[in-house]
Amino acid sequence: MALDDPQFAAAALALRYGPDQPGPIRWNPVIAGLLAHRSVRAYLPDALPAGTIETLVAAAQSAATSSNLQVWSVVAVSDADKRARLAELAGGQRHIAQAPVILLFIADLARAGLIAHDADAAADGYDYLESFVVAAIDASLAAQNAVVAAESLGLGTVYIGAMRNHPEAVAALVGLPPRAMVIFGLVIGLPDPAHPAAVKPRLPQAAVMHHDTYALERQRPAIARYDETARAFQTAQAQKPVGWRALILARGRDAAALNGRDRLKAALRLLGFGLR
Amino acid sequence: MALDDPQFAAAALALRYGPDQPGPIRWNPVIAGLLAHRSVRAYLPDALPAGTIETLVAAAQSAATSSNLQVWSVVAVSDADKRARLAELAGGQRHIAQAPVILLFIADLARAGLIAHDADAAADGYDYLESFVVAAIDASLAAQNAVVAAESLGLGTVYIGAMRNHPEAVAALVGLPPRAMVIFGLVIGLPDPAHPAAVKPRLPQAAVMHHDTYALERQRPAIARYDETARAFQTAQAQKPVGWRALILARGRDAAALNGRDRLKAALRLLGFGLR
Repeated sequence: MALDDPQFAAAALALRYGPDQPGPIRWNPVIAGLLAHRSVRAYLPDALPAGTIETLVAAAQSAATSSNLQVWSVVAVSDADKRARLAELAGGQRHIAQAPVILLFIADLARAGLIAHDADAAADGYDYLESFVVAAIDASLAAQNAVVAAESLGLGTVYIGAMRNHPEAVAALVGLPPRAMVIFGLVIGLPDPAHPAAVKPRLPQAAVMHHDTYALERQRPAIARYDETARAFQTAQAQKPVGWRALILARGRDAAALNGRDRLKAALRLLGFGLR
Repeated sequence: MALDDPQFAAAALALRYGPDQPGPIRWNPVIAGLLAHRSVRAYLPDALPAGTIETLVAAAQSAATSSNLQVWSVVAVSDADKRARLAELAGGQRHIAQAPVILLFIADLARAGLIAHDADAAADGYDYLESFVVAAIDASLAAQNAVVAAESLGLGTVYIGAMRNHPEAVAALVGLPPRAMVIFGLVIGLPDPAHPAAVKPRLPQAAVMHHDTYALERQRPAIARYDETARAFQTAQAQKPVGWRALILARGRDAAALNGRDRLKAALRLLGFGLR
């Protein structure tokens, strides 16, 4: 069954939603690729082919950026010692050391600061929470384009939000100046065929998508059905079948559930962000 | 010249970077599509074909989401009155009223709150800045997948960050509950062929991409060259040829340059976000 076979749409929707699928969708090879996404946590150690990182960065830079400010950067870490240290800082995520490269996406107000400094101009606007939010959004749009490009080349990826567990240590490891932080990492490499990753089902569209007006209470039945879909997936993956709501509750329980990220605001201030 | 013609790579890089291009990149139709992105600000009023929004949302939901928390939602606004009001709230961006739909991406901690409420459980973890950041990142990754899917279907898109100019009014318009906010909008429609959009050049990779260690000062010559590239682009577009650094300085000048977004933190608190 080729990726652009319309019959693949039904199979792709079944993997992505379980029994609770939206109506018929439009289909082409690009959409097929997007729907087939899965996070990869087992890699071959092979280096990436020449030009790969430049390709991913060109794709990333082609994403929209708020007012063309381009307040993001990327540090491609291939140094083995640094990857090993990043794996530790992420709570022992071995795939960071295993894959040939991790792209660290930087929320970067330092470049704007440099330009203001050189022009002997004020940079007060960058001291507001809004500027950090723009940087985080810009970096995310860019990174997702890199993911789409990587997957189109047969590569696997996984985002590493745990780069925010110890923001200062991560920043120091790659020499970030003030007003710059690693907002997340993105591991890139060849998936290990011995440990294939599965497509994870998501919430029904009835919970996530709204027309003209948002409806909260109406989401309850869709959430309940998704709990069953998640349980079935967990069972198939030989994981504890706790469902999905349990995961939401566990994350919300208390500050400790945030693995150090409860101090993100303090860390950002230490890294030079104003957050006014 | 077909999109998958390798000769197209050189043309695409020239549009994206001007004279300051990276070395040879890898190439396929997906990467060709990503590099050809441009923001579209002139639309035909035609409705989207059946199944389009469901397709974009399926693509969006297929993006990675931190710990599968899925703390984002989307409100598809096709109601003409609401689109007209959103266009006003965005400072008079007519394309919001012109195109058939705007997808409002929601940083959504309300669903988690509902689940905690129903379980009579604590939701303190969602009161931290980290949870807002996760929601903003998740929504951004999702939205960018929707952009890639839309463009693969021949549709145009433009992000509307100005949804953050008046966050409370926008939230009220679509009935958001506490702990939810529109992080940005995404206009979707058929590009008006009478007003074609251009690919905008970006910073050279020498400024944005770093290997193992970030370098700030080294970016100066690349930034200076990009100022010339931006000037040439602005001239070609019949815009004032101010270059790029001028734009960075204008945004940083003071709080007023943020068009109301200097009060984002206060607005988020009023909308129920803890931001601890």
